[in-house]
Amino acid sequence: MALGAAAVSRGRLEAFSDGVFAVAITLLALNLAVAGPGHGSLAHQLSNRWPSFAAYAVSFATIGIIWVNHHALFKTFAGVDRVLVFLNLALLFFVVVIPFATTTMADYLRQGGSDAHLAAAMYGGVYEGTSLAFIALFWYPIRHGLLEQPIPPEAQRAAVVRFCLGSGGYLLVIGVAFVSPLAALALTGLIAIYYVADQTPNPTPAAAEVSG
Amino acid sequence: MALGAAAVSRGRLEAFSDGVFAVAITLLALNLAVAGPGHGSLAHQLSNRWPSFAAYAVSFATIGIIWVNHHALFKTFAGVDRVLVFLNLALLFFVVVIPFATTTMADYLRQGGSDAHLAAAMYGGVYEGTSLAFIALFWYPIRHGLLEQPIPPEAQRAAVVRFCLGSGGYLLVIGVAFVSPLAALALTGLIAIYYVADQTPNPTPAAAEVSG
Amino acid sequence: MALGAAAVSRGRLEAFSDGVFAVAITLLALNLAVAGPGHGSLAHQLSNRWPSFAAYAVSFATIGIIWVNHHALFKTFAGVDRVLVFLNLALLFFVVVIPFATTTMADYLRQGGSDAHLAAAMYGGVYEGTSLAFIALFWYPIRHGLLEQPIPPEAQRAAVVRFCLGSGGYLLVIGVAFVSPLAALALTGLIAIYYVADQTPNPTPAAAEVSG
Amino acid sequence: MALGAAAVSRGRLEAFSDGVFAVAITLLALNLAVAGPGHGSLAHQLSNRWPSFAAYAVSFATIGIIWVNHHALFKTFAGVDRVLVFLNLALLFFVVVIPFATTTMADYLRQGGSDAHLAAAMYGGVYEGTSLAFIALFWYPIRHGLLEQPIPPEAQRAAVVRFCLGSGGYLLVIGVAFVSPLAALALTGLIAIYYVADQTPNPTPAAAEVSG
Repeated sequence: MALGAAAVSRGRLEAFSDGVFAVAITLLALNLAVAGPGHGSLAHQLSNRWPSFAAYAVSFATIGIIWVNHHALFKTFAGVDRVLVFLNLALLFFVVVIPFATTTMADYLRQGGSDAHLAAAMYGGVYEGTSLAFIALFWYPIRHGLLEQPIPPEAQRAAVVRFCLGSGGYLLVIGVAFVSPLAALALTGLIAIYYVADQTPNPTPAAAEVSG
Repeated sequence: MALGAAAVSRGRLEAFSDGVFAVAITLLALNLAVAGPGHGSLAHQLSNRWPSFAAYAVSFATIGIIWVNHHALFKTFAGVDRVLVFLNLALLFFVVVIPFATTTMADYLRQGGSDAHLAAAMYGGVYEGTSLAFIALFWYPIRHGLLEQPIPPEAQRAAVVRFCLGSGGYLLVIGVAFVSPLAALALTGLIAIYYVADQTPNPTPAAAEVSG
Repeated sequence: MALGAAAVSRGRLEAFSDGVFAVAITLLALNLAVAGPGHGSLAHQLSNRWPSFAAYAVSFATIGIIWVNHHALFKTFAGVDRVLVFLNLALLFFVVVIPFATTTMADYLRQGGSDAHLAAAMYGGVYEGTSLAFIALFWYPIRHGLLEQPIPPEAQRAAVVRFCLGSGGYLLVIGVAFVSPLAALALTGLIAIYYVADQTPNPTPAAAEVSG
Repeated sequence: MALGAAAVSRGRLEAFSDGVFAVAITLLALNLAVAGPGHGSLAHQLSNRWPSFAAYAVSFATIGIIWVNHHALFKTFAGVDRVLVFLNLALLFFVVVIPFATTTMADYLRQGGSDAHLAAAMYGGVYEGTSLAFIALFWYPIRHGLLEQPIPPEAQRAAVVRFCLGSGGYLLVIGVAFVSPLAALALTGLIAIYYVADQTPNPTPAAAEVSG
């Protein structure tokens, strides 16, 4: 069989990815920390920091959903080869940067000014990166016969359209960032909600129905 | 079968959740750090920081017990669907915030004043969030036939009562916070002890006996 | 069977513990950070921070060895019950505190003075805590029939003696800390080396031979 | 069988290692944080911090590839003994230090001066450590019959040569560091690309073909 002895175990790749997702999603909350006693009333500090809370919610939802889709996607793989491992690392490369992008965006959103535009665009750019890596991650196994069940061409095309919509959405976030950073954050939240419905290619319409 | 090919693997959902629990419980200890040499004697610094140690102990116990109950609950599931995954993310959303809520509470408890009331109420509020998410997490599978063994109605009702007691307890923490933040912390510790006994719904009375 | 439906899965308990061990051992290195440019030459900063490097090495070795023994111990369990889960949480309670104790010890060892005695004693105290929790963790399953193979009484007694030696060693660390914090750190390193040889109770002499 | 009851389970060793890899790779991004509003324009801060981004990319790639090779290597093991566990801990000892070495290198590279030489040499030194530990990790099981399939002598020799090339590469990084820290970073990136091709010993030429 083509995936012989040297093929990668799907289980361990998932375990490592889960670890990275879990650490990244938990580190998000580190930026919620307030300055502490002696920096104005706590109520004032908390209300001042609403961009951090909003950004935490949006980024948590997005990492959570990336994880869910990662999981749904990998379940369709019969095996994993070395190329796929590196495509997966490309996805994680951007996931790991999310807490940094989130913190920067929240800090500059609070302050406003032209730096907030750049920070929001960078935030959108990181998600664009995750989105492109994800497309590679679901396209490569289709092309290289790594799936347990082949996906009919029309289902493939539909999945590509759905994913490109999400990916185009993040491009829009980058554009909107230069008009209104807050609108860019809100749009990122909306894209997260869009991905709540399963957008990975499903082998059969029946399965799609169940998971939709 | 209704959970067909697109259903979620329980194992990977547990692995991801375990990762988040593990990181969150370990990050709790980051707030124990003292200011270091040149900020008064170490003995003085440590005794001054007793709220951090008390809060660490209470939060560690609570996350630990949420993990134990999460584990006991998921073992009763025959399968997991996409809705359950998002209910689980809702639980993790609050778990990830616990280190932040703990640190804030400890810092303001040390200082006292009216901010300590708000910090303690926020601490209780985060636990209330975990508690409500947990109720959804055990109620949804009962209603949607995801359990391996059906739970008799009276056992269902008893579990609801037990969980609402815990959830009501955290509401009480929020109320007590405005009277005495320290009492709110102590009460949170007592609720953790309450949950040490298994409060998840058990399929059979015999099993309940063993795990009680 | 006594461990019926409500019993805990050993696998998931191990996975959660592994997560905590992995995060705690990685957080150890956070304290190595130097102050950066503008705080004297790097060579000077690094040589000045030797207690941090020494403490990192000792604590890394100790957490590593606790993990190895945790692993060796859990492999002998036929099942896990709720009491064992809480004994395991008690162990993790101390493991999570190790990075804090290590940092504090290193910071005060550098500065010297009477605070260094207290910091080193606290360091020993945390390890004494892990050691006592570990004794409970291997004693409880013996007493409650959770082992896959019964351990002959003389092997039990030998394991108790070996573990009490380690535990007594950490008491000695606490005592030595008040004479010489550096000697206390060195002694902790020696105890780690002592535990490199498997000290968990082995079901058969042959197996002991292989793992020793 | 020689690996009897006391032998170590490969699965749990992999899980613990995966946790450490996942935390270390995620902590890398902590150093990307900018100083925030009030420290010059964000664009200026980001462009100023390019060594942090370059170092993040190189270290992420290197940890990622160590993980991939770790995975490929462990799959060839029939079993794991206590010595191997400690060799694995030696590898993790250096992996955990990578975020510290990366941060230090990036901070001093930005500033320039003679400290940058030392910081880059230390960076190369940590990778030299991982490389030597990795050689031990693949040599020991060959010598002690822990492999599922024996590796023909010529394949062993070829793997040794390939790994010594990588290891020698890191020695070169240390040397180059004293000439140009930036060139040392670039060379580390090149070595990462070299390891993208599987350099672990493969049991059969056919398998090597598939994974190469």
